[in-house]
Amino acid sequence: MAKTLNIGMIGYAFMGKAHSAAYRDVARYFPDVKVKPVMKAICGRNEGAVKQAAEQFGWESYETDAMQLINRPDIDIVDVCTPGWAHKEQVIAAAKAGKHIICEKPIGNTLKEARAMTDAVNKADVSSLVMFNYRRIPAVALAKQLIDAGEIGTVYHFRAQYLQDWIADPNFPMVWRLDKKLTGSGALGDLGSHITDLARFLVGEILEVSASMKTFIEKRPVEPGSKKMGNVTVDDAVSWLANFENGAVGTFEATRFARGRKNANGFEIYGSKGSLIFSFDDMNHLQFWSAKDSDKTQGFRKIMVTEPVHPYMEGWWPPGHIIGYQHTFVNTIHDFLDGLGRRKQVFPDMNDGLRCQQVLDAVERSATSRRWAVVK
Amino acid sequence: MAKTLNIGMIGYAFMGKAHSAAYRDVARYFPDVKVKPVMKAICGRNEGAVKQAAEQFGWESYETDAMQLINRPDIDIVDVCTPGWAHKEQVIAAAKAGKHIICEKPIGNTLKEARAMTDAVNKADVSSLVMFNYRRIPAVALAKQLIDAGEIGTVYHFRAQYLQDWIADPNFPMVWRLDKKLTGSGALGDLGSHITDLARFLVGEILEVSASMKTFIEKRPVEPGSKKMGNVTVDDAVSWLANFENGAVGTFEATRFARGRKNANGFEIYGSKGSLIFSFDDMNHLQFWSAKDSDKTQGFRKIMVTEPVHPYMEGWWPPGHIIGYQHTFVNTIHDFLDGLGRRKQVFPDMNDGLRCQQVLDAVERSATSRRWAVVK
Amino acid sequence: MAKTLNIGMIGYAFMGKAHSAAYRDVARYFPDVKVKPVMKAICGRNEGAVKQAAEQFGWESYETDAMQLINRPDIDIVDVCTPGWAHKEQVIAAAKAGKHIICEKPIGNTLKEARAMTDAVNKADVSSLVMFNYRRIPAVALAKQLIDAGEIGTVYHFRAQYLQDWIADPNFPMVWRLDKKLTGSGALGDLGSHITDLARFLVGEILEVSASMKTFIEKRPVEPGSKKMGNVTVDDAVSWLANFENGAVGTFEATRFARGRKNANGFEIYGSKGSLIFSFDDMNHLQFWSAKDSDKTQGFRKIMVTEPVHPYMEGWWPPGHIIGYQHTFVNTIHDFLDGLGRRKQVFPDMNDGLRCQQVLDAVERSATSRRWAVVK
Amino acid sequence: MAKTLNIGMIGYAFMGKAHSAAYRDVARYFPDVKVKPVMKAICGRNEGAVKQAAEQFGWESYETDAMQLINRPDIDIVDVCTPGWAHKEQVIAAAKAGKHIICEKPIGNTLKEARAMTDAVNKADVSSLVMFNYRRIPAVALAKQLIDAGEIGTVYHFRAQYLQDWIADPNFPMVWRLDKKLTGSGALGDLGSHITDLARFLVGEILEVSASMKTFIEKRPVEPGSKKMGNVTVDDAVSWLANFENGAVGTFEATRFARGRKNANGFEIYGSKGSLIFSFDDMNHLQFWSAKDSDKTQGFRKIMVTEPVHPYMEGWWPPGHIIGYQHTFVNTIHDFLDGLGRRKQVFPDMNDGLRCQQVLDAVERSATSRRWAVVK
Repeated sequence: MAKTLNIGMIGYAFMGKAHSAAYRDVARYFPDVKVKPVMKAICGRNEGAVKQAAEQFGWESYETDAMQLINRPDIDIVDVCTPGWAHKEQVIAAAKAGKHIICEKPIGNTLKEARAMTDAVNKADVSSLVMFNYRRIPAVALAKQLIDAGEIGTVYHFRAQYLQDWIADPNFPMVWRLDKKLTGSGALGDLGSHITDLARFLVGEILEVSASMKTFIEKRPVEPGSKKMGNVTVDDAVSWLANFENGAVGTFEATRFARGRKNANGFEIYGSKGSLIFSFDDMNHLQFWSAKDSDKTQGFRKIMVTEPVHPYMEGWWPPGHIIGYQHTFVNTIHDFLDGLGRRKQVFPDMNDGLRCQQVLDAVERSATSRRWAVVK
Repeated sequence: MAKTLNIGMIGYAFMGKAHSAAYRDVARYFPDVKVKPVMKAICGRNEGAVKQAAEQFGWESYETDAMQLINRPDIDIVDVCTPGWAHKEQVIAAAKAGKHIICEKPIGNTLKEARAMTDAVNKADVSSLVMFNYRRIPAVALAKQLIDAGEIGTVYHFRAQYLQDWIADPNFPMVWRLDKKLTGSGALGDLGSHITDLARFLVGEILEVSASMKTFIEKRPVEPGSKKMGNVTVDDAVSWLANFENGAVGTFEATRFARGRKNANGFEIYGSKGSLIFSFDDMNHLQFWSAKDSDKTQGFRKIMVTEPVHPYMEGWWPPGHIIGYQHTFVNTIHDFLDGLGRRKQVFPDMNDGLRCQQVLDAVERSATSRRWAVVK
Repeated sequence: MAKTLNIGMIGYAFMGKAHSAAYRDVARYFPDVKVKPVMKAICGRNEGAVKQAAEQFGWESYETDAMQLINRPDIDIVDVCTPGWAHKEQVIAAAKAGKHIICEKPIGNTLKEARAMTDAVNKADVSSLVMFNYRRIPAVALAKQLIDAGEIGTVYHFRAQYLQDWIADPNFPMVWRLDKKLTGSGALGDLGSHITDLARFLVGEILEVSASMKTFIEKRPVEPGSKKMGNVTVDDAVSWLANFENGAVGTFEATRFARGRKNANGFEIYGSKGSLIFSFDDMNHLQFWSAKDSDKTQGFRKIMVTEPVHPYMEGWWPPGHIIGYQHTFVNTIHDFLDGLGRRKQVFPDMNDGLRCQQVLDAVERSATSRRWAVVK
Repeated sequence: MAKTLNIGMIGYAFMGKAHSAAYRDVARYFPDVKVKPVMKAICGRNEGAVKQAAEQFGWESYETDAMQLINRPDIDIVDVCTPGWAHKEQVIAAAKAGKHIICEKPIGNTLKEARAMTDAVNKADVSSLVMFNYRRIPAVALAKQLIDAGEIGTVYHFRAQYLQDWIADPNFPMVWRLDKKLTGSGALGDLGSHITDLARFLVGEILEVSASMKTFIEKRPVEPGSKKMGNVTVDDAVSWLANFENGAVGTFEATRFARGRKNANGFEIYGSKGSLIFSFDDMNHLQFWSAKDSDKTQGFRKIMVTEPVHPYMEGWWPPGHIIGYQHTFVNTIHDFLDGLGRRKQVFPDMNDGLRCQQVLDAVERSATSRRWAVVK
């Protein structure tokens, strides 16, 4: 019979909603998961709002003080869904309290923060998960399987872009995600962290980068419709070239100014034996080109990744009955909980979060120095 | 504050799993729904299996006798997720017991059954819903809005196909869906009913049809690997031409023999002012061509139907964060429950189910007579 | 060294322009073709216009009387690019004069005409070619190779549509293509003949059909802007179901009322071992699904049919440097001339043209009788 | 009546074949072109081969010495289709001889060469054309029109890639394109020059770049099958970041190691009011997203750029009857010859060729210095 562990989650906005869905659903679709989550408590500073969130999302109780939540003896796993500025204190406290940790990405607003957090987690001997949920898209997991099976051969090229357009309108007002003090960086940390993690997952470690960061709109209304303007202190867009340890080269681009692109997280991988293309817009498909196919019939195959033989799909629906964004969280939480039950750390853990942050840091350093920067 | 109603669901296979997801999720994503469902009881004949399903899917109790469930005083809504042969008795009993009714499609195995069921429901003055869930795909709902707004003009052409391939292998064994006594028809009732409903929803009533039904593999192993063969008594594939009451013409195709097609339910609509293309493989998008666009820039627009202004999407995720198959059930159950709260029958109801069945019946008559058959 | 044969072409509109391109280009791209064409004479009734066409398209001389051209002793091959009403007399005269014949499709306005023409050609012992140019799209020729190699297995389904929209505007005036006396039929003969030929080429003979023909706009201005209205006497759209001799089933649709579709000639083929998808909009690609691919990596491959190993492509450009509509005529003329040099009839010849016309005739009979009609 | 000018072309390989097609076809499809070309003489060092090329491609005469051809008094326009190492001498000689000049891209193997050539052309007061043929793809020309009309607004992002795979096989032997002395650079000059020109055409001048160049396979057989190995002295792949003078940012990538990509020259442009996507694989379409579209129906429109209102298309075929690679040369030659007739220099001329080369030079400098390099 499955063991249960109690979850305490801090934050109840977009990510809080998504993580809640994962906790509610994981045992419904993966009844054999080794550990079942109990949605014990949710935490937020606004009591009225957090109370309502607890009810809507299905949490047993709520707290208004993060430290209170973290130290509740009935909480086994602390899930940090707060904005970046709050991560460090919460993760370190949770580690010190001996709680397993789930943390949204990027783990910190700075590399220094990320190091301190990772050190604390490593010292505490707790399990950790950084919510790079895109790894657990079945099509991405299949890409990984194909790479590991040698179907792509030596990787020559990795190209990734993560394109959104939600602040393309100059009248879009200041929000915490545009304030460096609160969020660390802009498109870089929010979107670039995801494609960095995918690059590490699929291709390997990044050695060095040459980067450019850009803020197209430097002043915005402090509130919707306000004439008072605030300073945007983060990047609207970032792009960088990369050299991987294994000799592959990469290009990365993240922006919030690509009109018409809503959540276009995609990559292309070209290797000596095959190629892969993925786009989140069409997340149930993976394109695969194989040099093994006959001369006359080589071409990019559009694999509908919904068969029982595909990663995670046995838990979901019959072939062709597609899944969506929220399922990536369920798959991720499944693997983490299952790993806890098997006493096996799954990835990406805090060390992966740290390595990702080292890349983000190198990108920022390169954009400033206008030279290549080593990831360290 | 939202009222609650108690659900009793019969059946716990594919559709039972999907409907359960809808009941669990509806108030999580649509907290303002006028009626919240209570998952009171699930019913199946195999006690061990139904008990496990109750636990996995989140039902409070279970029954092993459908009539027992239907007549439980604490059940307000009966949801019939059983194979076609069982629908009639269950729906009529539920109607007589004064319960609201949700019924999987097609409502009956024959037109006669469907008439009896619809009569019973109409007499009983209860609300009903037939689970033509594809109506509530946001892209399909948007298509309906565009048609209703006159953006397509007079519809000339409707073309629909619903393609699967799960029995293309001749060694795939006999299952209840291949036995006319249990299921009424094959691809026609299972898949053709969905595209018939979409045609009625989007274009209007069908006047007459000319049809062809085909069974490619007439004998199959009675069980996987068995040498004993059973007779396939339903259609593997069906196609028909149609004339609509409003002058549009249509072509329909449903098959389980289209290799590579998993759940390819799609349509194209061509009108005097615009055109629409939809495919379930890419269910978060709708293609729209408008004669209003300038001469130089006319083209099919690929609308990503994930904006807050799009039907149902405000409850889900931010733009570009796509949804999947199961969400169509949540959206449908939302509308039905919300309608109950507002004392407003939503559609498709049992009368829609009946009209759909009249089309299926005409298709069967035409395939036999090899002439056009009037829908009646 | 290549032999030469002299071409005499009747007609200088759209098809005359396209055929001229083929004669000019064939030996440029296929220098080893066994017979090189000499563009000896072009014929049209309007002397000024035909003289200009001769110059623009590169013909050595011109005639204003078709019989004059046909009987010129220096003409070896008569190419009939005239409207349907003129085909019969010209083809029969050319056959009687012992000239090889190239004829636009459909060969006649009626089955009776087609029979008379084919009889005359067969009696005359001359070679013939019907310009079903879509057979020689490299992607279509590759489809044929894959089918012949058994890669698709037993064909279950053929679905074709040929969609245009050039008369969707009710103010578009009367033209010869809308007058049954001049053109025989509308979308059926113009577009339906092409997909009928592709069906015969790729799948086999059609046994019987059940059809529907529709005229959406029955009266049109006799000239652009005129208030005087003329009667449209042909079909705006036609669709039909078909049974093939080999057991496959088919659906066909041709229309001039599919707004946004310009020349959307496409087909899908589903067989026991594989599937094929083609669309002229993207004519340099063929989609191919193979059951031989591994379970995890099955998917529709998008083959870019521009490799030297692909049909016809060695004569053209390097891989990825795509070709267009006019190249289909060059490829077709190449095969015909090469066949003449090798004393080998290539296909489709007049007998293919006749068999196609038998299908068109059955479609018309079925649309009238509202029953299935046997192709005969 | 149209004037004629006599063409002398040097080189008869891939580009010679393509340019020949343009000279043969231009007046066939654009009969109103102000200057018609006479294919006077072709030049190559191998007499047998050039003689055969002259015949196959339709040239009146041939030469085996480039200077001989350039100085023939009956030659008005010299077309340089030779490998890069030969350009400088030929172009300067032609300029000195007062001939108009058409030159393949990139114009020189080095910036120094390019400057000398451009100086010579500018001094000579002759017209020039650099064969950046992709500008005259109708879809690209339409993109330019939309940008010029303000439909895209302020450009934020330009992303281009030009992907091929013809040397991905390590056994592919040494050819002149892999030898820096003969070709200047690898993917950079061959492919990168095209996307650089498109960037300049569509967005504006590039200010500075940060680049990476990579040679994946450093030694190759000197001949097919040979065991003797030669050194690859050019880049297999190149990528760079760019800042445009107008504030836009860009990413560029060119490679010959993207398996499955044959000639994938494409770009994306994101601006304040709209976005554009183009891929040569599907060259008859342009995707366009407009903020002007209604909230509910915004989406990327796939414009089939084959209407008479679209650039160049009136000369070709009816809507939907697509064109291919070779047509881009016809369109380009048309504009150049027409410009000559109107005494109007069209672009890209040698000065554009030079500016492109300045970018390539900056890319090489940046790849060496590992810092940003200013384009100068």
